[in-house]
Amino acid sequence: MTTATLNTNAGRLNRTLADLGRIGETPQGMMRLAYSPYDIQGREYVMGLMRQAGLELRIDSAGNIIARKPGSDPGLPAIALGSHTDTVPNGGKYDGALGVLGAVEVAQTLAENAHTLRHPLELIVFTNEEGTRFHRWLLGSRAMAGLLEPEDYDAVDDEGVGIAQRLSDIGGDLSRIDQARRYPGELAAYFELHIEQGPTLHQSGTPLGAVTGITGRFVFKVEVQGMANHAGTTPMPNRHDALAAASHLVLATQRLATVDEICRVATVGNMQVTPNAVNVVPGEVALGVEFRDVDTNSLSAAEATLRRSAAEIADANRVSISISQVEAARSVPMPARMQNLVAEAADQAGLEYHSLPSGAGHDAQSIASITEAGMVFVPSVDGISHSPNEFTLPADCANGAQALLNMLLMADSRL
Amino acid sequence: MTTATLNTNAGRLNRTLADLGRIGETPQGMMRLAYSPYDIQGREYVMGLMRQAGLELRIDSAGNIIARKPGSDPGLPAIALGSHTDTVPNGGKYDGALGVLGAVEVAQTLAENAHTLRHPLELIVFTNEEGTRFHRWLLGSRAMAGLLEPEDYDAVDDEGVGIAQRLSDIGGDLSRIDQARRYPGELAAYFELHIEQGPTLHQSGTPLGAVTGITGRFVFKVEVQGMANHAGTTPMPNRHDALAAASHLVLATQRLATVDEICRVATVGNMQVTPNAVNVVPGEVALGVEFRDVDTNSLSAAEATLRRSAAEIADANRVSISISQVEAARSVPMPARMQNLVAEAADQAGLEYHSLPSGAGHDAQSIASITEAGMVFVPSVDGISHSPNEFTLPADCANGAQALLNMLLMADSRL
Repeated sequence: MTTATLNTNAGRLNRTLADLGRIGETPQGMMRLAYSPYDIQGREYVMGLMRQAGLELRIDSAGNIIARKPGSDPGLPAIALGSHTDTVPNGGKYDGALGVLGAVEVAQTLAENAHTLRHPLELIVFTNEEGTRFHRWLLGSRAMAGLLEPEDYDAVDDEGVGIAQRLSDIGGDLSRIDQARRYPGELAAYFELHIEQGPTLHQSGTPLGAVTGITGRFVFKVEVQGMANHAGTTPMPNRHDALAAASHLVLATQRLATVDEICRVATVGNMQVTPNAVNVVPGEVALGVEFRDVDTNSLSAAEATLRRSAAEIADANRVSISISQVEAARSVPMPARMQNLVAEAADQAGLEYHSLPSGAGHDAQSIASITEAGMVFVPSVDGISHSPNEFTLPADCANGAQALLNMLLMADSRL
Repeated sequence: MTTATLNTNAGRLNRTLADLGRIGETPQGMMRLAYSPYDIQGREYVMGLMRQAGLELRIDSAGNIIARKPGSDPGLPAIALGSHTDTVPNGGKYDGALGVLGAVEVAQTLAENAHTLRHPLELIVFTNEEGTRFHRWLLGSRAMAGLLEPEDYDAVDDEGVGIAQRLSDIGGDLSRIDQARRYPGELAAYFELHIEQGPTLHQSGTPLGAVTGITGRFVFKVEVQGMANHAGTTPMPNRHDALAAASHLVLATQRLATVDEICRVATVGNMQVTPNAVNVVPGEVALGVEFRDVDTNSLSAAEATLRRSAAEIADANRVSISISQVEAARSVPMPARMQNLVAEAADQAGLEYHSLPSGAGHDAQSIASITEAGMVFVPSVDGISHSPNEFTLPADCANGAQALLNMLLMADSRL
C-alpha cells in the first residue's frame, strides 16, 4: 500500500467552491448554463486557478479545457482528473463544480509541495455535460471519446443558436471537432470526484462512495389510445378510459422496481392527457417510462415485464397501448481496480466508504470507453440535486478532494 | 287516456334538421358557437320556420327566441317546448337542434291541422346552452329561471368580447336582462326533446327514453404535493412520487362507480404533472374529479369515499393531497307525472320506452325551477355526442317529435 504524504487544503477548496458558486447565482439557483456568459466567466475563473497551479492550458475543438502538467517519465500517458462547470437551470453549486475544483485543489497541493508525478497530469473541464443546451448531454466528453452522434452536429438550442456558434463562443471549433478525439492508450486513467446526488451516503453517514458503475438507462414512450367521450352520459362499462389504463401502467412501472425488484429504479416522470377536460373521459394519454440499473439484463427484464403488463392493462381497460424505446444507454461498469483505488484512498484518509452505483450519468461514462475510469462520491444532504437546495458539507467536499489526491498518487505509482 | 289524433311529418322534420345542419358545418364538425355569425344565421332559419307556422316572435333580453301561439282559454298559462341551436366546437347536428326543430314540427303540425290548444303554446330557443362562449353554460335558460350568478354579468369570452356585446348581437340587452326572468305560474309546463348523448337507448334498441331526472354533478380539484427529485439517483423508498399517488386516486375514483357502485359515473378527465420531465420524479399533480348521479346523497357518499381514499393514498405514498369542491350542482328530478306523460306518449305512438336519467345537463334543469319539466330522449348511435360523428336515425328523430306532440296534447287536456 502506498501511503499518502500530501494533504489537500480544505479551506482553500471551499473558498474556490464559494467563489465559483457566485458566478451565475440567482435567487432561484445557479444559472451557469453551458456556453452562456456566466459559463464563460466560470471557465475563466477556473482557468485562472489552473494557471496559478502551474498548469499549461489549451481548449480543444470541442471546447473542453485541458490543463496539463508534465510528468517525470516522458514515456507515460497522462492521468486525467475532470468534471464540468456548467449547471442545469436553477441548479446547485456542487454538481460538476466539486469535481473540477477538487482536481484543481489536487494540482495546487502538488504544486505547493513541489511534488512531481511520474505521469503527466491533466485536469479536464468538459463542456455541456448537463445537456440543457441543445438537449444533447455529455457533449464535451463524448467528443473526446469519439461518441458523437449525427444529431450532435446540427443541434440548435432553445434560443435558436446552432452548436457551431456556441462552440466558437468558448474557443471550440465544430468544423474540426474530430480533433478533440482521443484514443485508447492516450490516457492512463481518468478519475472523477462528484456529489452523489442521491441520499445513500448521507442517510448512512458514510463520507465516501466507491462507484461500482454508472447505471444504464432505458427510456420508453408509451401511448395509450382509448376513446374520448362525455363524462356524464357514458356509462362506466362503455368507457375506453385512457387515463385509467395509464394509471394502471404507472403503478405497474413502480411495482417493477419495488415489489418485484426487477430493476433498481423505475419512473413515470411525464404524462399528457387528451383532451384533458374535467367533463370528458380521456381519449389519449402519452407518458414516459424510464428504467435505470447497472445491469443491462435487468433493464431488458424490466422492459419485458412492462410490455407484458401493458398488454394485460390494454386488454382489461379496452384500450390499445403502444410502446417505443427512445433511449437505450447501456450501463458503464467501473473496473474493479478503479473501485479498489477508491477503497484504498478512503482507508488512507481514515474514512469509511460504501460501494454504490451512480444513478445519474457523468462524463466518466464517456471517458470509460477510452481508458479505465474511476469515480468517488461524497454525500449530498438529503440527496437533493439539480436544485438551489443542493448542498454538501465543507468537510465532505474536503474528504472528496483528499480521496482524489490519494487515488492519483496510488495510480501514479502503480500504472 | 287521451288518444293522439295528430301526426307529425317525419320527412319535413328531417329536412329541417338537414337544413339547419348545413349552417356552420365544417369538415371537422358543426361550428355554430353561440353568438357567432353561424349561430345568428341558424336562429334566423328557425325564426323563419316559426313564422311560417303562424307563431308570434319576440327575443327576450337574454337573447332567447320565444315564439308564441295563443290558446283558446285566455286564463291559462303557456305550455313551452324548447331547447337550443348553439353547438360546441366540432359538434354534431342533433344536440339541441332536434329539440328545437321537433318543437317547430309540432307547431307546424298543429297549424296545418288547424288545431288550437287550450293553453298558449310557446317555442323557446335558449341562448348559449353549451357554455362554449364565456365558459358559462345554460345562460338563456338560467336568465329565464332567475338563476344567473354574479360571474355571468361580467363574463368575457375567449375572443375578449364581453357578454353585453354578444347579447346585443342577437337582440338581447344585458342592462335589462332581469326582464327575461319568468316566475312560477307563468308556464304550465315545459317539455324538451333531446338526443340521449349516451348509449343506453341505442344499445337496448329502445326508441324513446323517459328522463327520470338530470344528474347532479360534484366536481373537485385535487392537488397532490410530493417532492420532485432525480429519477436516477433517488431510491424507490425515498420517493414522494406525486404521479404514483395520483394514479392510485384515478383508480380509486373509477372503483367508486364500478366495484363499489356508490355513484353512477365517476371520472378523472384532466391531469397536469409538474415538472413533467421523463427523468424527474413528479413533484406535483393537479387533477379534476367529477361525480354524477341523480341522487345527491350518492354524490355526498362518493365525496366522503374520495376523501377517505385520498387520506389513505397520501399516507401510503408519503405525499399530501388537498381536495376542494369547485362545483356542486344538485340533481334535478323530473316530476312523476312528467315522466308518466312520456310513457303514455310512447304508448300512444306504439313505441317502447325506458326510464333513464340524463347524464348531461339541459335547459330543462333551469326551467324546472319555475315549472314542471319533462324530457324525452331518442337514441344516439353508439352514444356519440359533441362530435361530428353524432347521429340519430331519421326514424328516431321522427319518433321523438311525435312523442313531444303527444305529450303536449295530453298536457293541454289535463293541466
